[in-house]
Amino acid sequence: MKTTVDILKEARMTKACAAGLSTETKNALLNAMADSLIDCSDRILSENKADLEAAKGKITEVMLDRLALSEKRLNDMADAIREVAVHPDPVGRILSETERPNGLRIQKISVAIGVVAIIYESRPNVTADAAALLLKSGNVCVLRPGKEAWRSAKAIVDALRDAAKKQNLPETLFNITEDTTRKSAQELMGAVGYVDLLIPRGGAGLIAACVEDAKVPCIETGTGICHLYIDRAADFEKALSIIENAKTSRPSVCNAAEVCLIDRPIAKSFLPLLQKRLLSGKHPVELRLDTEAAGIIDGTPAGENDFDTEFLDYILAVRIIDGVKEATEHIARHSTGHSESIITEDPLAAEYFLKNVDSAAVYHNVSTRFTDGGEFGLGCEMGISTQKLHARGPMGLEALCSYKYLIRGNGQIR
Amino acid sequence: MKTTVDILKEARMTKACAAGLSTETKNALLNAMADSLIDCSDRILSENKADLEAAKGKITEVMLDRLALSEKRLNDMADAIREVAVHPDPVGRILSETERPNGLRIQKISVAIGVVAIIYESRPNVTADAAALLLKSGNVCVLRPGKEAWRSAKAIVDALRDAAKKQNLPETLFNITEDTTRKSAQELMGAVGYVDLLIPRGGAGLIAACVEDAKVPCIETGTGICHLYIDRAADFEKALSIIENAKTSRPSVCNAAEVCLIDRPIAKSFLPLLQKRLLSGKHPVELRLDTEAAGIIDGTPAGENDFDTEFLDYILAVRIIDGVKEATEHIARHSTGHSESIITEDPLAAEYFLKNVDSAAVYHNVSTRFTDGGEFGLGCEMGISTQKLHARGPMGLEALCSYKYLIRGNGQIR
Repeated sequence: MKTTVDILKEARMTKACAAGLSTETKNALLNAMADSLIDCSDRILSENKADLEAAKGKITEVMLDRLALSEKRLNDMADAIREVAVHPDPVGRILSETERPNGLRIQKISVAIGVVAIIYESRPNVTADAAALLLKSGNVCVLRPGKEAWRSAKAIVDALRDAAKKQNLPETLFNITEDTTRKSAQELMGAVGYVDLLIPRGGAGLIAACVEDAKVPCIETGTGICHLYIDRAADFEKALSIIENAKTSRPSVCNAAEVCLIDRPIAKSFLPLLQKRLLSGKHPVELRLDTEAAGIIDGTPAGENDFDTEFLDYILAVRIIDGVKEATEHIARHSTGHSESIITEDPLAAEYFLKNVDSAAVYHNVSTRFTDGGEFGLGCEMGISTQKLHARGPMGLEALCSYKYLIRGNGQIR
Repeated sequence: MKTTVDILKEARMTKACAAGLSTETKNALLNAMADSLIDCSDRILSENKADLEAAKGKITEVMLDRLALSEKRLNDMADAIREVAVHPDPVGRILSETERPNGLRIQKISVAIGVVAIIYESRPNVTADAAALLLKSGNVCVLRPGKEAWRSAKAIVDALRDAAKKQNLPETLFNITEDTTRKSAQELMGAVGYVDLLIPRGGAGLIAACVEDAKVPCIETGTGICHLYIDRAADFEKALSIIENAKTSRPSVCNAAEVCLIDRPIAKSFLPLLQKRLLSGKHPVELRLDTEAAGIIDGTPAGENDFDTEFLDYILAVRIIDGVKEATEHIARHSTGHSESIITEDPLAAEYFLKNVDSAAVYHNVSTRFTDGGEFGLGCEMGISTQKLHARGPMGLEALCSYKYLIRGNGQIR
């Protein structure tokens, strides 16, 4: 078995090659990677079957579904890679250009970051997406999937490496750790000098472990306690359809709403409508109500942690507050900084909310479910950053780049 | 004594206020801060005198000089603050704007980061510069100066707080830790949820401690093992004056050159000229020569670590290599990623070097001493980042901002 350190050494050796690849070479390789996934589908599907059998009974049904591959899902993965090929090259863009009084010409240009490690869980498409996005942005990837998805991920990486070999490019553009224990994750977190950026994609536990232990630069992703604030000047029909959509269209994802704040003057008229709407759907939503809301409609009394929990389920915490200012204060205390939306026809309340809520995506009269690279027009994404350093919100190709300054002169001294 | 945690709590409470200040309010406060430094000069200078007396014999002469204040230096500090007032507001810039096919209008706008902690050493002007830059970028500062500079820093912060009070703004825009032991630095590094960004400014030891221990997002600054590569097609006169400038104009700063790589075909003709130039100056430079260079001119034989040392002194390591490719390889192995320069009249060699050297600032026919916020036209700077995440090279006001997305719609659901 190759150690994680050996793999990191190979990755580091490949940095200069990856950073210098031309757009044409990268796009040709991306298309070859998509083809290779299809060519290798038998092996990938059979390894995936082995993963699924080993995982049965050990992980939830939802996780098993995330892990499962099919011809259709493989085709979707290949298509996603082909889309990355179509996207403009994020490397080598001139971000600014200036000539100084002393004649120095200073260019700021985008460059690759280097070796980017991803720690993730069970979705095999993350393997292909991450490899494609990191190649296009001139980076070398080191992938560390969850144990239960390792065979599938390895088969996918082997297919991608085949494509690289056929294009006479180093296989070590794509790397996967062989150790699937906690040790390899810890090694990546501590790999100062090898890993230029670590992106953990997963639950709150993984993110917390990275915050605690990572010595390499890290981007936190994905925890979303998203709020909807229904202002006194809300259009009720808009509000109801946005709440229903944000809560029930896909409750397991990070941009789903978890908390609904209702402005006091409309609470008595709006809450019964909300209850009716959320109970009438295919999946009835459990409402966790603060004391005041519980005095108006029936529901579960909200517990101590219900306003600080990412339910990822058909559950919505409901609290009555007094106006947009109190709404932003509640959000400042309880939000994870992912996505929040105000529903109102009052432009002043909307602008107050947009200005004062400090989250990656702040919406007016829109469902929080739109926080997504594709919906933002960024192409596919590498996760949604909930931190403020480097990248915030959906991370597309540009967020996977750094920059450097090029300074041309003719003998200037200082 | 206020604990560091108490100070952090106050800072966090001030975040929303700082982030929302108008440009006019910030500029008025900045000018008042400059005035207040002058008004309080007696107290600041007497506290500085106390610092100097306590430090005598415990720190080097160079450090004592860095610590010392005078009327002149105080005036310079005040002027630097007034310059920050003149600079455009970095907060609220529209970074991109797009309308999606479904009618969503998406704006990406710059916002403050939040609470920014700075751990630094003995230069009192860092106190004023950091406070001014962080105020202008909508952030709240928590300053943690070196023990030997604490009285001066405290007197400066008191003067800045006076200015805030007079403008009816919270004093807690500006914060200084009261504990000057290692404990307060460790507390800042671990203050998850309080400190949004930590910037260590200081020697390699401080940076290493932050990499090792910091749990909050961190930007590494300042260590510079900067290289000059003298190509076979170099103009010798340009090369000599650039080497002399980069090495001797201010050897104690991070953009000073530490290593000179000489292309083999010109080694025999160039080295004697280099030796003559560097020995004839006011401060003769000690040359640490690799074996091959030592066969051509006299000097100290280079030791094992001489190509991996930030001398910050009148010492230059010299190595003979073979061509621009080998130069970039040497730099990839030994550089801290700060600043490197190629001296050549060959445009192909220059472009190869500019493309392949992965450092914050890469120069052609220019002294590395220009890596500086002022020289780059960024105004004053918060240090020079040697990492790739978020900010690289000189960090001006824009590097002290994050961004968020504002999305306006009319009921869109997904």
